[in-house]
Amino acid sequence: LNQEILEKANERLANQARPAGSLGMLEPVSARLAAIFGTLDVRLDNKVIVTCAGDHGVTEEGVSLFPQEVTPQMVLNFVNQGASINVLAKHAGARVRVADLGVNFDFDADLPIFHKKIGKGTANFAVVPAMSREDAVRSVEAGIEIVNELLAEGPLEILGTGDMGIGNTTPSSAVIAAFSGIPVDKLTGRGTGIDDAALANKIRVIEKALKLHQPDSKDPLDVLAKVGGFEIGGLAGLVIGAAAAGIPVVCDGLIATAGALIACERAPAARNYLFASHRSVEVGHRFMHEHLGVEPLLDLRLRLGEGTGAALAMELLDAATRVLCDIKTFEEVAIVDAQKK
Amino acid sequence: LNQEILEKANERLANQARPAGSLGMLEPVSARLAAIFGTLDVRLDNKVIVTCAGDHGVTEEGVSLFPQEVTPQMVLNFVNQGASINVLAKHAGARVRVADLGVNFDFDADLPIFHKKIGKGTANFAVVPAMSREDAVRSVEAGIEIVNELLAEGPLEILGTGDMGIGNTTPSSAVIAAFSGIPVDKLTGRGTGIDDAALANKIRVIEKALKLHQPDSKDPLDVLAKVGGFEIGGLAGLVIGAAAAGIPVVCDGLIATAGALIACERAPAARNYLFASHRSVEVGHRFMHEHLGVEPLLDLRLRLGEGTGAALAMELLDAATRVLCDIKTFEEVAIVDAQKK
Repeated sequence: LNQEILEKANERLANQARPAGSLGMLEPVSARLAAIFGTLDVRLDNKVIVTCAGDHGVTEEGVSLFPQEVTPQMVLNFVNQGASINVLAKHAGARVRVADLGVNFDFDADLPIFHKKIGKGTANFAVVPAMSREDAVRSVEAGIEIVNELLAEGPLEILGTGDMGIGNTTPSSAVIAAFSGIPVDKLTGRGTGIDDAALANKIRVIEKALKLHQPDSKDPLDVLAKVGGFEIGGLAGLVIGAAAAGIPVVCDGLIATAGALIACERAPAARNYLFASHRSVEVGHRFMHEHLGVEPLLDLRLRLGEGTGAALAMELLDAATRVLCDIKTFEEVAIVDAQKK
Repeated sequence: LNQEILEKANERLANQARPAGSLGMLEPVSARLAAIFGTLDVRLDNKVIVTCAGDHGVTEEGVSLFPQEVTPQMVLNFVNQGASINVLAKHAGARVRVADLGVNFDFDADLPIFHKKIGKGTANFAVVPAMSREDAVRSVEAGIEIVNELLAEGPLEILGTGDMGIGNTTPSSAVIAAFSGIPVDKLTGRGTGIDDAALANKIRVIEKALKLHQPDSKDPLDVLAKVGGFEIGGLAGLVIGAAAAGIPVVCDGLIATAGALIACERAPAARNYLFASHRSVEVGHRFMHEHLGVEPLLDLRLRLGEGTGAALAMELLDAATRVLCDIKTFEEVAIVDAQKK
């Protein structure tokens, strides 16, 4: 981050013709974006949301309402522009790109998606590790590659991360449990809407997996391999890749934030480039934000994923750039600082 | 509200290719907008934010950091497009219109503002009522007139309300105290940033005024007259006028919401058209929302007013209209509802 620009940004915010601090969270957001780009006049003209998809062997344990078949169906829905993320990304002026990190389906090679399949779904981590350490590394590298491929296509000023994968709140809850040590029953939610009995089962499955595999909280790739998912690895790679390229990245819900968590545990400097879009209904999400030390911009009781919260938050980030640059200072409007004391 | 369209909207939301309820607060917002306009395809193409300005005699009691002179200076800043609301309204695709309900300054008659001055600032309500009952009625009627004048100018699909007036968190806190009976020290905040001693004084001033004037909580015009403000009356009129014209209205912070409170106490059906944009830092704001039974969309620690929160929330309302209309149903995307149970 450009510290000189950060100071200039904070100085400008303090001198604008309004009470100091009165634009709340928009102010530090605008200053950080300025520091990332090294200018007070940030323009987020080229926005992309990458929705990473993958399947999960742990669905065998009955942790989700929907069957795995829905994952590829939704990938095709994204490509056909009919899904929630297409609608909200369009509203935010962002393009949607879909990445297959590990869907249990053979997509046509011509399909306009990032073909980064590590495997056709993870293994059932209630029984064996979700993936090998090598595949964990490959999934993160795939995310980094996607950023580089996007940059090779043309300009990119902001990246949003989103997910699709039936059953993927289960590995995401397991990831934050592994890092935080917080009891599983405190951070596990209902995903797409399971009932009390299914929730109790989901908690037992995660507890059992953590006990069985003993993921090393000091080794994020071990956590990813044992209780993560291919798309979660890809989402971690997107954060690392964006940060390495000096591009801000807005993470979406529970799954995208699980990826961000792995990224920031592995490469703590990535946190400087990370913005949390929203606080979802999933209770584990707030523990992730606390662990990351980030504060989400929105709290709309979303629980959809796909990148929908990231798309909505991009509009706020855009607004923040205008706040910093376009609101005039007392000097500029010739209102002398008339504050009494 | 069109109940048939409301039902159709809820049915469509439930059938979209995503988990039921997964777009949280955007869903009821989108359905209510549909019911207001009588169509599932709502287009908020013409957005206006009206910023109502007024001065307050109670500033004599030292309740604000800034002197009254700042009110007209900021009005001129709004007209010159250099203020926070201009920047955020532009981002939201909204026009800003300024209304003088009672600024202590003689504006040039040619200035492109709504000239609706009731008086050159209210009286100091620590000593006498803020205004006569007749002036309270006139201020509300001025707000209604503004809506009608806007409608005469051309199409208008959504109205945002905002305020400018040095000292106006004091009457706003007094208004919610009068309606709710909640102790003044629990609902009074620091406004633009007064210190502990000034806050204690502000609380004493409001307590004294309520005891002295005994505003009748069953009579919103009595509350407005005794402890309100000219711009608060205008803001109430905007809500009543918009609702009467079948136009949704987004209220901003503490002062705009004080106006909305008076509007909905006077004309309860107006609440159907009211959207709360954000929860501000001012503690009284949440009591207003509770009293109104509305839930704000944003919580960004704003405390600026002018309509800035309303502008930001308009982008979410816009997004909500696209959610309802553009996200495809399971049937439309030919994904059979594969839910297991």
